[in-house]
Amino acid sequence: MSRNALKIVTIGGGSSYTPELIEGYIKRSDQLPIKEIWLVDILEGKEKLEIVGAMARRMVKAANLDWDIHLTIDRCKALKDADFVSTQFRVGFLQSRIKDERIPNSYGMIGQETNGAGGIFKAFRSIPVILDIVKDMKELCPDAWLINFTNPSGMLTEAIVSYGHWNKVIGLCNVPVMAMISEPKLIEKTLDELTYKFAGLDHFHWHRVWDNTGKEMTLEIISKMYDGEDAGLPKNIFNVPFFREQLTQMKMIPCGYHRYYYRQEEMLKHGLEEYESEKGTRGQQVMKIEKELFELYKDPKLDYKPKQLSERGGAHYSDAACEAIASVYGNKKTQMVVSTVNNGAVPDLPNDQIVEVSSQIGASGAVPMVFGPFSPAERGWLQVMKNMELIIVQAAVTGDYGLALQAFILNPLIPSGQKAKDLLDEMLVANKKYLPQFSGKIKELLDAGVKVHDQVAANIDNTI
Amino acid sequence: MSRNALKIVTIGGGSSYTPELIEGYIKRSDQLPIKEIWLVDILEGKEKLEIVGAMARRMVKAANLDWDIHLTIDRCKALKDADFVSTQFRVGFLQSRIKDERIPNSYGMIGQETNGAGGIFKAFRSIPVILDIVKDMKELCPDAWLINFTNPSGMLTEAIVSYGHWNKVIGLCNVPVMAMISEPKLIEKTLDELTYKFAGLDHFHWHRVWDNTGKEMTLEIISKMYDGEDAGLPKNIFNVPFFREQLTQMKMIPCGYHRYYYRQEEMLKHGLEEYESEKGTRGQQVMKIEKELFELYKDPKLDYKPKQLSERGGAHYSDAACEAIASVYGNKKTQMVVSTVNNGAVPDLPNDQIVEVSSQIGASGAVPMVFGPFSPAERGWLQVMKNMELIIVQAAVTGDYGLALQAFILNPLIPSGQKAKDLLDEMLVANKKYLPQFSGKIKELLDAGVKVHDQVAANIDNTI
Amino acid sequence: MSRNALKIVTIGGGSSYTPELIEGYIKRSDQLPIKEIWLVDILEGKEKLEIVGAMARRMVKAANLDWDIHLTIDRCKALKDADFVSTQFRVGFLQSRIKDERIPNSYGMIGQETNGAGGIFKAFRSIPVILDIVKDMKELCPDAWLINFTNPSGMLTEAIVSYGHWNKVIGLCNVPVMAMISEPKLIEKTLDELTYKFAGLDHFHWHRVWDNTGKEMTLEIISKMYDGEDAGLPKNIFNVPFFREQLTQMKMIPCGYHRYYYRQEEMLKHGLEEYESEKGTRGQQVMKIEKELFELYKDPKLDYKPKQLSERGGAHYSDAACEAIASVYGNKKTQMVVSTVNNGAVPDLPNDQIVEVSSQIGASGAVPMVFGPFSPAERGWLQVMKNMELIIVQAAVTGDYGLALQAFILNPLIPSGQKAKDLLDEMLVANKKYLPQFSGKIKELLDAGVKVHDQVAANIDNTI
Amino acid sequence: MSRNALKIVTIGGGSSYTPELIEGYIKRSDQLPIKEIWLVDILEGKEKLEIVGAMARRMVKAANLDWDIHLTIDRCKALKDADFVSTQFRVGFLQSRIKDERIPNSYGMIGQETNGAGGIFKAFRSIPVILDIVKDMKELCPDAWLINFTNPSGMLTEAIVSYGHWNKVIGLCNVPVMAMISEPKLIEKTLDELTYKFAGLDHFHWHRVWDNTGKEMTLEIISKMYDGEDAGLPKNIFNVPFFREQLTQMKMIPCGYHRYYYRQEEMLKHGLEEYESEKGTRGQQVMKIEKELFELYKDPKLDYKPKQLSERGGAHYSDAACEAIASVYGNKKTQMVVSTVNNGAVPDLPNDQIVEVSSQIGASGAVPMVFGPFSPAERGWLQVMKNMELIIVQAAVTGDYGLALQAFILNPLIPSGQKAKDLLDEMLVANKKYLPQFSGKIKELLDAGVKVHDQVAANIDNTI
Repeated sequence: MSRNALKIVTIGGGSSYTPELIEGYIKRSDQLPIKEIWLVDILEGKEKLEIVGAMARRMVKAANLDWDIHLTIDRCKALKDADFVSTQFRVGFLQSRIKDERIPNSYGMIGQETNGAGGIFKAFRSIPVILDIVKDMKELCPDAWLINFTNPSGMLTEAIVSYGHWNKVIGLCNVPVMAMISEPKLIEKTLDELTYKFAGLDHFHWHRVWDNTGKEMTLEIISKMYDGEDAGLPKNIFNVPFFREQLTQMKMIPCGYHRYYYRQEEMLKHGLEEYESEKGTRGQQVMKIEKELFELYKDPKLDYKPKQLSERGGAHYSDAACEAIASVYGNKKTQMVVSTVNNGAVPDLPNDQIVEVSSQIGASGAVPMVFGPFSPAERGWLQVMKNMELIIVQAAVTGDYGLALQAFILNPLIPSGQKAKDLLDEMLVANKKYLPQFSGKIKELLDAGVKVHDQVAANIDNTI
Repeated sequence: MSRNALKIVTIGGGSSYTPELIEGYIKRSDQLPIKEIWLVDILEGKEKLEIVGAMARRMVKAANLDWDIHLTIDRCKALKDADFVSTQFRVGFLQSRIKDERIPNSYGMIGQETNGAGGIFKAFRSIPVILDIVKDMKELCPDAWLINFTNPSGMLTEAIVSYGHWNKVIGLCNVPVMAMISEPKLIEKTLDELTYKFAGLDHFHWHRVWDNTGKEMTLEIISKMYDGEDAGLPKNIFNVPFFREQLTQMKMIPCGYHRYYYRQEEMLKHGLEEYESEKGTRGQQVMKIEKELFELYKDPKLDYKPKQLSERGGAHYSDAACEAIASVYGNKKTQMVVSTVNNGAVPDLPNDQIVEVSSQIGASGAVPMVFGPFSPAERGWLQVMKNMELIIVQAAVTGDYGLALQAFILNPLIPSGQKAKDLLDEMLVANKKYLPQFSGKIKELLDAGVKVHDQVAANIDNTI
Repeated sequence: MSRNALKIVTIGGGSSYTPELIEGYIKRSDQLPIKEIWLVDILEGKEKLEIVGAMARRMVKAANLDWDIHLTIDRCKALKDADFVSTQFRVGFLQSRIKDERIPNSYGMIGQETNGAGGIFKAFRSIPVILDIVKDMKELCPDAWLINFTNPSGMLTEAIVSYGHWNKVIGLCNVPVMAMISEPKLIEKTLDELTYKFAGLDHFHWHRVWDNTGKEMTLEIISKMYDGEDAGLPKNIFNVPFFREQLTQMKMIPCGYHRYYYRQEEMLKHGLEEYESEKGTRGQQVMKIEKELFELYKDPKLDYKPKQLSERGGAHYSDAACEAIASVYGNKKTQMVVSTVNNGAVPDLPNDQIVEVSSQIGASGAVPMVFGPFSPAERGWLQVMKNMELIIVQAAVTGDYGLALQAFILNPLIPSGQKAKDLLDEMLVANKKYLPQFSGKIKELLDAGVKVHDQVAANIDNTI
Repeated sequence: MSRNALKIVTIGGGSSYTPELIEGYIKRSDQLPIKEIWLVDILEGKEKLEIVGAMARRMVKAANLDWDIHLTIDRCKALKDADFVSTQFRVGFLQSRIKDERIPNSYGMIGQETNGAGGIFKAFRSIPVILDIVKDMKELCPDAWLINFTNPSGMLTEAIVSYGHWNKVIGLCNVPVMAMISEPKLIEKTLDELTYKFAGLDHFHWHRVWDNTGKEMTLEIISKMYDGEDAGLPKNIFNVPFFREQLTQMKMIPCGYHRYYYRQEEMLKHGLEEYESEKGTRGQQVMKIEKELFELYKDPKLDYKPKQLSERGGAHYSDAACEAIASVYGNKKTQMVVSTVNNGAVPDLPNDQIVEVSSQIGASGAVPMVFGPFSPAERGWLQVMKNMELIIVQAAVTGDYGLALQAFILNPLIPSGQKAKDLLDEMLVANKKYLPQFSGKIKELLDAGVKVHDQVAANIDNTI
């Protein structure tokens, strides 16, 4: 590692989140001797890259820092001798997300970015790309750390480790951050006074909390959650409460995404309402917000992260990435919740699989704290979800249709049967541009006349 | 064991299956030196017990055997010094089964005897009774073997071992028998020429098949299954085919009950059609068949098992029970598929839990053959289902409402949400007579005005 | 916990180590609002208790602290409402240690305090006592934390958790502290710059080290160890070097006690030389040092820990105890190496067993960091040693002679055979005063004429 | 498989055991449609091959069978299209065995064919050869079954599966056969009336026994063993009894080779007595017996297995091989104790490692019966021995000296220290002809002047 002149690369640099990332680096400029920041994007994203890149330069200048901000669509040039690579790309842009939402919705099923059929297809599109990046890194920057926050972050980390055989990776998630921001207030404590232990999978973890006398506060937080709003719920999740009897029994706090599994009926109903409404699905709403954000970013006077960005839904992700980088670089031994190799932290899952777990982040990466065994209900959920992740990753790598079908059948948000299979086929066709691994099957489906029925999804132009 | 004068007790002796059981003993009269057969039932079942008991006596007489057939409602008297105890009782009779089917159906969900909400409630009703029987056996016949084929057989075996701490038990299932009868024909082989290996859970197992040269025949059987009818499907399961791509990928043959999980949409649709039809749910149909059977049984000239019994749906269960008894008594080392303690046979599950697996049955009980680890898709299913079983059994023993709710939420056939909770509440109320462990919660629900909405289920008289 | 007026109890308070303990509390007087310190001993230790107690009072006074130092032989009075209980007792005093050393030596075998036959008997004597203390604590101070540094510390912790069912316990060891003091110098680093990960069992662990850039330094430290003295070796261990080829292959640093297992021949030879020499075994040497220490302690002017104490061999143990107490009380999340429940940290051992592992110590106790799986050579050692611990603990609790024999046969430092059995018998007889659980067998042995052959051991007076 | 004209190949065909093998085939001529038997040996063994080959032909002729017996030193020619390959070779002949015994003995350590330093070196010599054979089989007879009874049979099977990636293998051992022949008599039963369950490792397993009423007879057999001779002890093992208290505690029967571990002192003493005596070590004695056997075999009238062969020590091995072949060919589902992939049968060891366990042998190979978890004492032994096997196999494949040293240090029969390292070095030098994988290290040792000190071992001519 070039200890006095860091080169940091961000793939998907044209993202609307980049200002949060830049802000995160600026906040930590005393911890990170940055020399160069490379924002990389693909040709179709060049315009956005330039807008957001210009703004990044204004932010750095306003902070009186002499960092070089490079904008490029040449990934190899950027990766050469990098110290840290963060990934925040979105294969197929928001257009693909809208398909991930609307096509399942059109079958009366949950359409969501990282869950259900949508989550499976996001993995199918993203995994080949991340494995390609890893391949380049092996050649161009074999000592660099990869900080991934492209979703589904846990499955991408699994692919990076199990198929890319790359261990210098930390998978990030913003959900735990949000819980740790909002929950302490509920019980009139500060975060410093509390000890958090998280374990599970990305977007599918649980946590427990203790106060500074060692007393467990989990049930007290649960109790407070029923007096007011749910603590720490991401913007993109509809707020139906968990059943109180369930949480009291499990004595743990599930993450916001558990709503899809614990209150499937209501989440589906809400999703379908949005789908049928004027404003459209979350992806459609975000597309609007994004447009507004980029309009803001164009303002040559704007040299700080605008507050509108926090409405975008992925707040804290980029800051978490900066913190992870600073912790690795500075051997800070910060406690963060990340996706990393299990190694026993969650003994209900094999040692060599990726889990999301409270870990110490230092110069040698993430070292998980043990969480211990789960009770049967949570263990059942955990094991079915992890095994589903494994087959999704394997299908994403191999393009095996049978495995993709198995994933659809096993997924708790997809009722199995003919509709599920039809949905799988339609989504394959809808994503044909981004799924070279499935090209044979897709051709066969096209020949058989399979096509996208939802008109919005069918007419989407997958360019920016 | 009284080696020359066996006393065999059957609890639920008034069942319409008893003639198959008696036939099974008669077939094995050279292997089993039976002196007494005790058929036990409860007061409400006394009439049936007498009908079927009289017929049993005729059958034994026709076979020129001098066995004493005792009919009693005094369970303790029957259990005293018994050598084998088989259990085939049905708490709440077919009336309860009809509730298990119709109430979930009325919520638009699958209603089935051993799966979904119905299966959970059958476990809730039966587990306290089987644990009571075990308590009596510890006192009255501590050396006897318990052969259980009361469903859900796997969960009852789990309760017997984990909560009853009784290890001399074999849990039976007829489903594997049926596969082994019908599949060999598909590939023009006899059963003798093939080697079967089953593993999983009761009503949720998979199997693989090899021929006598060691060649695996599983894919060949799968292939043949798509040319004609599905092999070995129990009468009570609607025959929607599995997706061929799925079976080809898994390279194993799932049991018939997997349809509920692999083709949920179609199974639900079919179930709702029956629910809304004249003939009603399976339980209602069976009630009719049962009435006809008992009419037949009354015939003082009938001294053999009538062929109509095989239409009843549970064929081979009773014969399997007789074979298990003969194998234990005679140390026959027969290969059977039974529910027993795992001990490593299915390494994806803990050693001390109950699995259903190909085993050698001899004088010291069942010794499983190893099956080895599953692939991720099957492992995910297996682990979620086993953990669900564990919480159902625990809820059945403790009457913990939160756990019951967790079981409903985890069950893959019950979409989670308010409807699921309402269904749970309604079923608790509907089963109040048989769920003393939940009496506190049920009272609370009754006070809150919860009642059964389906009119058939609401008006059922739980007597025979 | 009485947060502003801590009551701390030390069982075995008359120990020569107590001044280090008192010094440790004084150093942390700003972190620990101590009100009372209770030093407890037994009647035979009363004189020592008074000497060391008087000195403790002088130390506290010199530090201008108003803590009450209570001296008592009434354990119950001391335990009543305690916040922290530390245990540093030695059943049978140094006299028993001398027997643990000399009797095995007289059979030509290793005689050592926590290893081989001696370690087994130290466990046999100490486990019933610690379980008695736990029983009292359940009644008198159910919210207190137990900080155990009575050896063999790992086995005592196992007994406390598995048989005492007491989870608020931290088992301490000074060996890792010593490695972390001496190794950094070897590679010209400070401890702050390095990251240590330890795992294994008490007195049988390994560690790895990384620098603040994430580079593993383990092999570099190993390399430096061959240029000079071994780093961090406790005083009581003879310094024969490990085979360099072995350490280079394992890529981990074993603890000092591994010498008994990796260089058994030389350790035995050295032990036998001391045994046959004028100065005698380590226990005999320590007895002299102790006498001198107590002479020093009698000096009414001495009000600080004399430097001679550090020659005693157990340096840092008491300080580690103070640090553990301060970390729990202050929720400091200090990283320490302690004996605690595995929970997956060492996935080669079951979740519920005690391991010694780098952990975060805070208000809810020790949370281990995962270490991950070991390589086969270390895994083999680890598993055989842990299983041996389990049977020793079980034998200590039950007094089962067959199990004690199994432990002797499995112990890698005791060649199995008739001599091993004779040694077991002789040691049982030699320890008869302290082994009520084995009283039946001991009586039988005495009747058969078994007696202690080593004259020093035979003539030892087990009083102080 | 050529189902009507089997080609069976035996590597090491010039062995004195071959007549037992031929007798085994003749006994099963109705089960095995043999066309050709190929006896393969190396050039140095050609003379013996011809003697034993001629005798084999006489035996076949006397049995009126028209099998072709081929004798060859061209292994490839023999392997071409083989159906079964059995391996009974001994790298370096009995001369190597004598070194394996005498060199450790000269250091005052146990010298034995499959245990201690000797067993490690037998593995070092044999594993590269068996992996070479597997390589040839992949090319020349990819559908054949490999029946290995070259010792150490368990480690060779581990190498074949883990490094050769060849799964159609069954590893054989004669020790269980001998127990099952001799034990039933002790309790006045026949083998047919008893049920045996074995589990552990090759030459390191335990077993339990039940009668035909399901009653466990293990303790009764143990009890009888103390009234007379030990049951089923192989000829090559000195008969010192196990400690009765140990066996009564473990409630299992250890195999004969456990004596080396449970009565190390006496086994060592006996071995050293033989070493120092006129008659010499077991290998030297066997060399004499072998000479006499070959004199017998030369007799052109001898056409049956002479009874002197049974004194040789390896009785039943060859017959077990024939039975394994007949069971695979005929899908007999015979119960045999073999080395095969664990898959959960012994849950204290990983799924993918080789164990020796009671299995059903049929057309698809060995299917283990579950044995369930061991108690801690046996589990400790089992785990340390299995891990030692793993490092021996890895060292045999890689020639890593550090690993070889780790194996010596971990081995319970080798006291660690300088002598152990010197022994390792001396044995490497003594075996230089057969250890190409260690050639670099051996050259270094030779340059440093390491040489064999025992005069018999030093002067052995490794030719036949």
